[in-house]
Amino acid sequence: MTRRTERQWVERLRERFAVPSPGVQLGIGDDAAILAASSDPWVCSVDASVQGVHFDLRYLSLQDVGYRAFQAAVSDLAAMGAAPVAALSALVLPPELSAAGLDALTQGQQAASMECACPVVGGNLSKGQELSLTTTVIGRTRAPLTRVGARPGDQLWLVGPVGLAAAGLACLRLGHAGGASRRGAAVARCLAAWRRPRALLPRGLELAQCASSGIDISDGLASDARQLARASGVRLVVDRELLRATLDPSLIETSRSLRRSPLQLALYGGEDYALLATGPARARPGWAAAIGWVSRGQGAVLAGTGYNVPLERGYDHLAHGR
Amino acid sequence: MTRRTERQWVERLRERFAVPSPGVQLGIGDDAAILAASSDPWVCSVDASVQGVHFDLRYLSLQDVGYRAFQAAVSDLAAMGAAPVAALSALVLPPELSAAGLDALTQGQQAASMECACPVVGGNLSKGQELSLTTTVIGRTRAPLTRVGARPGDQLWLVGPVGLAAAGLACLRLGHAGGASRRGAAVARCLAAWRRPRALLPRGLELAQCASSGIDISDGLASDARQLARASGVRLVVDRELLRATLDPSLIETSRSLRRSPLQLALYGGEDYALLATGPARARPGWAAAIGWVSRGQGAVLAGTGYNVPLERGYDHLAHGR
Repeated sequence: MTRRTERQWVERLRERFAVPSPGVQLGIGDDAAILAASSDPWVCSVDASVQGVHFDLRYLSLQDVGYRAFQAAVSDLAAMGAAPVAALSALVLPPELSAAGLDALTQGQQAASMECACPVVGGNLSKGQELSLTTTVIGRTRAPLTRVGARPGDQLWLVGPVGLAAAGLACLRLGHAGGASRRGAAVARCLAAWRRPRALLPRGLELAQCASSGIDISDGLASDARQLARASGVRLVVDRELLRATLDPSLIETSRSLRRSPLQLALYGGEDYALLATGPARARPGWAAAIGWVSRGQGAVLAGTGYNVPLERGYDHLAHGR
Repeated sequence: MTRRTERQWVERLRERFAVPSPGVQLGIGDDAAILAASSDPWVCSVDASVQGVHFDLRYLSLQDVGYRAFQAAVSDLAAMGAAPVAALSALVLPPELSAAGLDALTQGQQAASMECACPVVGGNLSKGQELSLTTTVIGRTRAPLTRVGARPGDQLWLVGPVGLAAAGLACLRLGHAGGASRRGAAVARCLAAWRRPRALLPRGLELAQCASSGIDISDGLASDARQLARASGVRLVVDRELLRATLDPSLIETSRSLRRSPLQLALYGGEDYALLATGPARARPGWAAAIGWVSRGQGAVLAGTGYNVPLERGYDHLAHGR
């Protein structure tokens, strides 16, 4: 993989990720990192990004791979309404990855780590046959926002655009490039949404103050709405026209050239890392779009004029051979 | 991999790992787990176990793989003198792994989790080409024991036997089996040491009260002694006769049939998850064997009658094609 030894890499990564943070007493280099005590509860989560499953190096630079794997992990903290404290990064490195490649990968992680104010305080390096990044994130919150708590009568809120990332990936697969034209600019925005997603941390912190439940949309709005409904024991109703009204103009423009329905991309496209939450109508922040409501029952449905369609498809991380 | 969907597996694992613990407010099933606030600092670490690199299914059952990956991760908490609070488990599952195989793997993790009183509160399931287990552990300690702090004049302490695991692996490679004879019993002990290592958590907690520095021996005594010396800016001297006196009778017996030097296995064999620590002679607990001392200088040496040998070899996790 590289002529540097493990120790030299650990030293290099220690320098790269050495960002002073009041929550961190000891970072990379010992048997474990040490985090300062806290009077708030802690939240922790882990997310993996595996070559050929979660990313394809034909469409992403190694910097992009590092960046988005990190943001995807941090998005779970946003969904819990937590502030990041620290991250741990375990990398499996195949023999064909060059030293420059590992450098680029960790530069991408570093950029995301800085943006999220979430220092990397430890990790693990291993050789292997396929590149993978497993990122653990640890955060703090006084009032965690969970998937349990949606009540019939609550509104359903969407924070952040959905569908752009899936449109971006579709453009890459078809060879549609961004450019200076209106259409090119729309494609560029979709590409950026897929390559460089951003965890909605400040929004998550604010939602924790006013929402009754929340989840991040990683597998697609339809799939994650079903998860939220199941956890809360309610039915989520997505109003077709309300959702349509939130669609990003770049998604609408790009879906035309893709000959795809923007609504389908919004419902079934994943990897946007937007947030879905519920709460009383009077508590809705201006930046959260009301796209439906919570009712008694189960599952998630799309409601239009005179019809309801169950939102059934979704991404299964274990389905091989897709 | 299996006909169960991801959601069904998450549900099954939630049941498997649902052990009530005062430190855990919310376990598997949400965007993140929630841990209770603590007035002590937190320690966290991540460790990966990759098929073909860290384990070989010719020599280990999937239950063994799950068990030892978990104990190896927890060993970092022992080295820090921390009590476990929770673990996160990210699994990459290749298509050939059956549902029964995943079940066995997680049974092994569960057994280790129970023994360590370290509940699994979250994780990630992904498909991939090679099996890997990435385990994050989170613990608490009032007085963390780090690698920095060894002082010239301190004694060097070994806690737990070394060399047995490497001898066990060598037996498997040569087809030596355990049995009822004295030699067979010795081999069986070595095999168990390799297949079912145990993190020395209670010892770690006690060392945190009396030691000046500590590390767990995962890559071999020689290699980890060098790491400790480097971090503390001192020289560690391992006394050949003192070390020899600590050798387990099963190691001596087995090394004979392997035609290997037991001292070499003790110095350069890894994966025992013993602890190496330093501290003032008057503070040494009875269960910690004095095997040398700390002096000014750098590196680690083996001292015998009239000679010093640098302890130089060690395991590099990034060296491919070994």
